This record gives sequence, structure tokens and C-alpha cells, in this order.
Amino acid sequence: MARQETPQDALGRLIEALRVLPGVGPKSAQRMAFYLLQHDRNGAALLAQSLGEAVETVGHCACCNTFSETPICITCSDDRRDPSLLCIVETPADQVMVEQTLSFKGNYFVLMGRISPLDGMGPNEIHFDRLLNRIEAPTAGIAVREVVLATNFTSEGEATAHYIGEVLKSKGIKVTRIARGIPVGGELEYVDAGTLARALMDRRSVS
Amino acid sequence: MARQETPQDALGRLIEALRVLPGVGPKSAQRMAFYLLQHDRNGAALLAQSLGEAVETVGHCACCNTFSETPICITCSDDRRDPSLLCIVETPADQVMVEQTLSFKGNYFVLMGRISPLDGMGPNEIHFDRLLNRIEAPTAGIAVREVVLATNFTSEGEATAHYIGEVLKSKGIKVTRIARGIPVGGELEYVDAGTLARALMDRRSVS
Ligand SMILES: [Zn+2]
Ligand SMILES: [Zn+2]
Repeated sequence: MARQETPQDALGRLIEALRVLPGVGPKSAQRMAFYLLQHDRNGAALLAQSLGEAVETVGHCACCNTFSETPICITCSDDRRDPSLLCIVETPADQVMVEQTLSFKGNYFVLMGRISPLDGMGPNEIHFDRLLNRIEAPTAGIAVREVVLATNFTSEGEATAHYIGEVLKSKGIKVTRIARGIPVGGELEYVDAGTLARALMDRRSVS
Repeated sequence: MARQETPQDALGRLIEALRVLPGVGPKSAQRMAFYLLQHDRNGAALLAQSLGEAVETVGHCACCNTFSETPICITCSDDRRDPSLLCIVETPADQVMVEQTLSFKGNYFVLMGRISPLDGMGPNEIHFDRLLNRIEAPTAGIAVREVVLATNFTSEGEATAHYIGEVLKSKGIKVTRIARGIPVGGELEYVDAGTLARALMDRRSVS
């Protein structure tokens, strides 16, 4: 989206700046600005501080690629998890959803995207070389014995699963796909934990 | 809404802080935080700065009560406007809508709310004494000859118009109400400029 010329006044600049938020158009941005200034200036100040802090301190886990303030994230640092199982998801939101099922105790790799040629998203953009390094470098001496593909059941998610599955299988790695208990065309972030838990249990070998 | 315990990590604090925005629940807040960190860190930093700046510098116009960075706002400082006409609106967003019709060249008073006993909003909360002072103190020697009530056609907006109308008429001030060209139950912020322009033209004396 093209940014317009910066407004001259602080209120105008705030309304313009709020439009960086996904799904927020000019009218919502105006409503948010007026609401904050009229009803919650403390909340607005806290939001300013939290945004600044997060931008400064949040990077990516060197191991699983998710957002992390430390070089290795809390999940990857947890030695009670099974390093022989690796679940691949598109986004941190999807990882949160899988965690909430309490039915997966392995590790993760977060692609931070999906293969989508039309959007210029290829293997490089989903950090495929880092994923391969991750799989080929044993954690605490334990090799990955199964990769669980938990990308979305959208066409891009399926293409991503297919691509990763083909390459990993050619290297002799066991690859499974979570079961299609999730509605076709649906996104992980919007299903209930029970459905997702069953999809994890019913995961099947990629033929 | 009760705030939960502050999360320990910067990402968690950002997600929590985003919930001060109207209409943003836990899921939208998470999506916004992930989006900003992944795709628009510059925009997030600019938003942080704009929020801080607006909280510091935006106050209320001493004359019309709308948001302003200066003691008297730009509209009230504009001597090409007709100080004998005073339009009363509920919010700055409504004032923006009236301005966009290009069919009102008087001044404004922004109530920053509406009378709503159930929400604890009475004459004090809509700054009714400041409105009376505003009407009784001539601007540049020119008295207010007509007050245009442009509150919403919701039940609260109608009650607000009724209350203000009764008091002002008892003081011998001419009071008009914008025409009911606006759908009953509708809000000014959501109608098109043409409808609102006609409602302004068709304003009628409060009997
Ligand atoms: Zn990690
Ligand atoms: Zn003013």
C-alpha cells in the first residue's frame, strides 16, 4: 500500500500510523485514534512502549525459526521434548494452535510463510535450507526420525507440504501429514483444539 | 475489561497491549503482533512513536472541545467561518463527516459523548456548562443566532438533542435539528456526504 504524504498534525500522523495494522482502513484507524485519546491514554502509552520494545528485542529462534527474544526459543530449549519428532508449520500462530492441543511433544520448524509462486514465495522464502540443516544436525545426538507436515490445507499449504515431503523422502526421511480432519480450504488457526488433536493423531505416511 | 497479569516476554506484552484497541480481541491482537514483527517493523516503530507523540500533545480545544494540539483548534481559529451558527455533534468523527459535506460554514461544539443515563453519561459528561458558556460568550462580538443539533438519530442522540434543545429554547436561543434524512437508528459516521448535506439543508426549527 502506498503511504500518503505525512500529515502535519500528531492526530493525523497517529491515524495514518494505525493503518500499518492488518485489516485497519482509514475509518477504523480514525475510530481507534479517537477512542484511545478519549478513553485510554494509559493504554495507548503502554502500547507505544510495547511496540518499541518488541521491535527492538524480538528476533527468530536459530533452531526452529519462530519469534524469540533469546537466540534459542523456550520450546527448543525444553529438553523434555522429543527431538526425534519435528512438526513443520507455516506461522507462529499455527504453532500456538498445535501446542494448545497438548498432543504433540516433539519440536517445531516454523516456515514463516508458505510456497506461493504468485506471491514470489519459493523454497528460499520459507527458509528451506535452514530446515534441511535443522533435520540433518541431530539435537543432543538424537536424529529426526519423523517430520510431521502441519501446513494448512489451502492450495499453498498443500503445495508447500508436497514440496517439502518430496525432498525429504528423497533423502530417506519419514514424512507424515496431519490428517484431513481439518476442513478442506480451512486454516489451522481457526479450528478447535479437539479437531486439530485428532488430525495430529491420524497423521499418515506421505505415499 | 480486566487486564490479565503482564506477560513475561516482549511478544506477549505486545499482544496484550494491542487489546486496548477497540474491537481487537486476543486472536486479532496475536495476528497483528505477528504481522508487524514479520512484515512491517518500520511501521510498528512509527506507530509506537505516533502513539507516544499523540498522547503527549493532543488535548481539547478550549472553544469547541474537539481534539487539538493548540489551545484553540484550526477550525475555531478560522475567521472565515460564521460564528453566529453553532453545530453540535457527539464526536470528532461526526464533525469530520459534517465538514466533508462542505455545506456548513459555522462553528462547532463537540460533546465528546451523548446523554445516556445507563452509562452514567449526564449533562456534566457532555460538558454542557462549557457549551452554555460558549453560546453566551460572543465570538469576535458576534452572538450565536442559531444552534444546529447534529447528534445521532439513535435513542441517546435524540435524548441529547431533546435535552440541549429544551434548555437553549428556554433561554430564547433558536435551535434547529438536522433533518431526518438520515435513517432512524443510523449513525452520522456511516452515511454518505450527500445524504448528510441534505439533512443539513433541511434542518428545521425545534418546535
Ligand atoms: Zn525454537
Ligand atoms: Zn475548536
